[in-house]
Amino acid sequence: MLTDIQQICTDIQRIRTKVPLVHNITNFVVMNNTANALLAIGASPVMAHALEEVEDMAALASALVINIGTLNTEWVAAMELAMRTAKSRHIPIVFDPVGAGATPFRTNTSLHLLELINPSVIRGNASEIMALAGAQIQTKGVDSAANNNEAATAALTLAQRYSCSVCASGAVDFITDGKRTTLTSNGHPLMPRVTGLGCSASALTGAFCAVNQDYFAATVHAMAVLGICGEIAAHQSNGPGTLQLHIIDALYNLTDAQIETYLKMETRPA
Amino acid sequence: MLTDIQQICTDIQRIRTKVPLVHNITNFVVMNNTANALLAIGASPVMAHALEEVEDMAALASALVINIGTLNTEWVAAMELAMRTAKSRHIPIVFDPVGAGATPFRTNTSLHLLELINPSVIRGNASEIMALAGAQIQTKGVDSAANNNEAATAALTLAQRYSCSVCASGAVDFITDGKRTTLTSNGHPLMPRVTGLGCSASALTGAFCAVNQDYFAATVHAMAVLGICGEIAAHQSNGPGTLQLHIIDALYNLTDAQIETYLKMETRPA
Amino acid sequence: MLTDIQQICTDIQRIRTKVPLVHNITNFVVMNNTANALLAIGASPVMAHALEEVEDMAALASALVINIGTLNTEWVAAMELAMRTAKSRHIPIVFDPVGAGATPFRTNTSLHLLELINPSVIRGNASEIMALAGAQIQTKGVDSAANNNEAATAALTLAQRYSCSVCASGAVDFITDGKRTTLTSNGHPLMPRVTGLGCSASALTGAFCAVNQDYFAATVHAMAVLGICGEIAAHQSNGPGTLQLHIIDALYNLTDAQIETYLKMETRPA
Repeated sequence: MLTDIQQICTDIQRIRTKVPLVHNITNFVVMNNTANALLAIGASPVMAHALEEVEDMAALASALVINIGTLNTEWVAAMELAMRTAKSRHIPIVFDPVGAGATPFRTNTSLHLLELINPSVIRGNASEIMALAGAQIQTKGVDSAANNNEAATAALTLAQRYSCSVCASGAVDFITDGKRTTLTSNGHPLMPRVTGLGCSASALTGAFCAVNQDYFAATVHAMAVLGICGEIAAHQSNGPGTLQLHIIDALYNLTDAQIETYLKMETRPA
Repeated sequence: MLTDIQQICTDIQRIRTKVPLVHNITNFVVMNNTANALLAIGASPVMAHALEEVEDMAALASALVINIGTLNTEWVAAMELAMRTAKSRHIPIVFDPVGAGATPFRTNTSLHLLELINPSVIRGNASEIMALAGAQIQTKGVDSAANNNEAATAALTLAQRYSCSVCASGAVDFITDGKRTTLTSNGHPLMPRVTGLGCSASALTGAFCAVNQDYFAATVHAMAVLGICGEIAAHQSNGPGTLQLHIIDALYNLTDAQIETYLKMETRPA
Repeated sequence: MLTDIQQICTDIQRIRTKVPLVHNITNFVVMNNTANALLAIGASPVMAHALEEVEDMAALASALVINIGTLNTEWVAAMELAMRTAKSRHIPIVFDPVGAGATPFRTNTSLHLLELINPSVIRGNASEIMALAGAQIQTKGVDSAANNNEAATAALTLAQRYSCSVCASGAVDFITDGKRTTLTSNGHPLMPRVTGLGCSASALTGAFCAVNQDYFAATVHAMAVLGICGEIAAHQSNGPGTLQLHIIDALYNLTDAQIETYLKMETRPA
């Protein structure tokens, strides 16, 4: 646990020092707060989706974050192109299958992209992870409707199938690379009432992968950090409106001492 | 009035219990705060605009909200497809003609969609409602430049033409289904200085329609609730920046007692 | 300096009285806070990008703001059309080359549009202004990586090449029309940690150009005002999350006395 705390603090220090460029092809709903979460932790966000420039932008970046929250065919083509560029340059790729399971278009697009290019990390809620693993689950829009045990099995399946790390997030986040498994349980019940905090989690995972080549550890650290900041922010908030901005402030102000005080994680055999 | 209070509280309770999925095809400016307003009141928002999935998503939803605030031809096709699906499945449709009257494209698109598929509710500001009714009015961008008496006449015209409920919102909201008319006058002068609160009103109307088949009443309830939350939030705010987030908090924390304290509405013969 | 203060106050008063319509074709990340910044200062924002309506909307507007932050080919065509309309009607055009220098698509698109239609004002960070002037500079995403002396030379080059005012913004904003030069140095180090404040600066410049035909002075005034509001807001903020909304409140509440207290600007020979 002490090692974990130290490693998280080291990653944050590296992000703040290196200011890694994180290239996001993400959804319209969350672009603003995704950018603000990345700036707050110390990274440099850029959003670019045009076919004419995604290869150039991905090549400049230290991490690529792909999020299908408001996808259409043209954006999917840009995602594919950016992922190919990142893959060929060994730039880490985080994939967020927002709403997979809700419509065939989202599920099929996710599986299509994952088959073409293995990402470094897949992060979704329980429903989304289960939908990609082929479990019989109907996602209700973009909010999760599944329980964590089934999601853990699905996460392991995906981790092995795509040789990547997988995070099924929820009250407890289940994170595995098929060999190692960690559960992080920071966070607050008010967090799902703010739109796009899952998307922020994926973007932050990109920032951590940009400075830590152990992408499994980077994912664990990002999930822990967002959960801790959610807890800190919830103490100062009267509802989801104030929570959203206090999380940004908390990411900006996060100290080693706070990580030590708040961190709740558990390592398990996979 | 006591009955009205009780019905509003019942609707809110139903939203919080059923967590209805509200499918939004809306504009880029307001997607984030629309999603947050829906989450705050207790609904589950989803944004999806791709032709490949709007039918699937609309079919899953308990309400469809169409908002033309940053329309283009491709999005209009998706709106039409989603509206057809919702109509055939008796899912309530709320239509928000943002900027109708400002450009022929917005006016004509609105009329085209309304002629094809009668929505359950049309909600716009006075200028927009008048533009759709054919009044000689030049909308100034997306902000209203009309007075309420003329808008009331226009709202009645639209309600009868499209057999739906119509809300012409403003300092006083005029709501009619052609037979019944209610005026709600909650709200605060600072509210028009926050972008997209009209769009939030339309989205919340979708949430109320999802739990109350009397769409006229659902519209009245949504307008009253947003107005009340605006008043509560204004007491805590120093300007439009803080107002925006306190409204979200107020929607989340809204109690029956607050509704009883604040509600200002008046029923008139149509 | 006294004259400057008076002129800034006069411009703000005019914006609040005339409520000029500012037509924005801008990026997805900042649309919401751009609209809120414009509403807070007293202008009326509209976002419209469809080829079917940009000419109509630009013709209604008192200023056009073009921002390439999340451009693609279709949007560039709309930008060109809107710029042609504004130019032919003598409506001021503010151009924000977000990310120029980061990818050839952004640099080339910016130069293409600038060659076709001289804007009234170009506002970018140091890297972007240098990239457009042909300096050998690699922009890192959308954040600046250049120093101010080189940017000043580049700004002068662009001002003369395109017969317009140019602002290279940073801790000190360098503003020139090729003949006059002013440096404004209001602001706060936390401001670059909020996404899109540069974009807000461009949008506010549009609002000031709408009421002041001396576009050089209008640009100076807009940069000073946003910087002052950033300083005021920073005193009340715990991080970039709260800063963002307090800036909106500060724009709304800004008084002549605050401008007199805070204004830091210096006029130099060009």
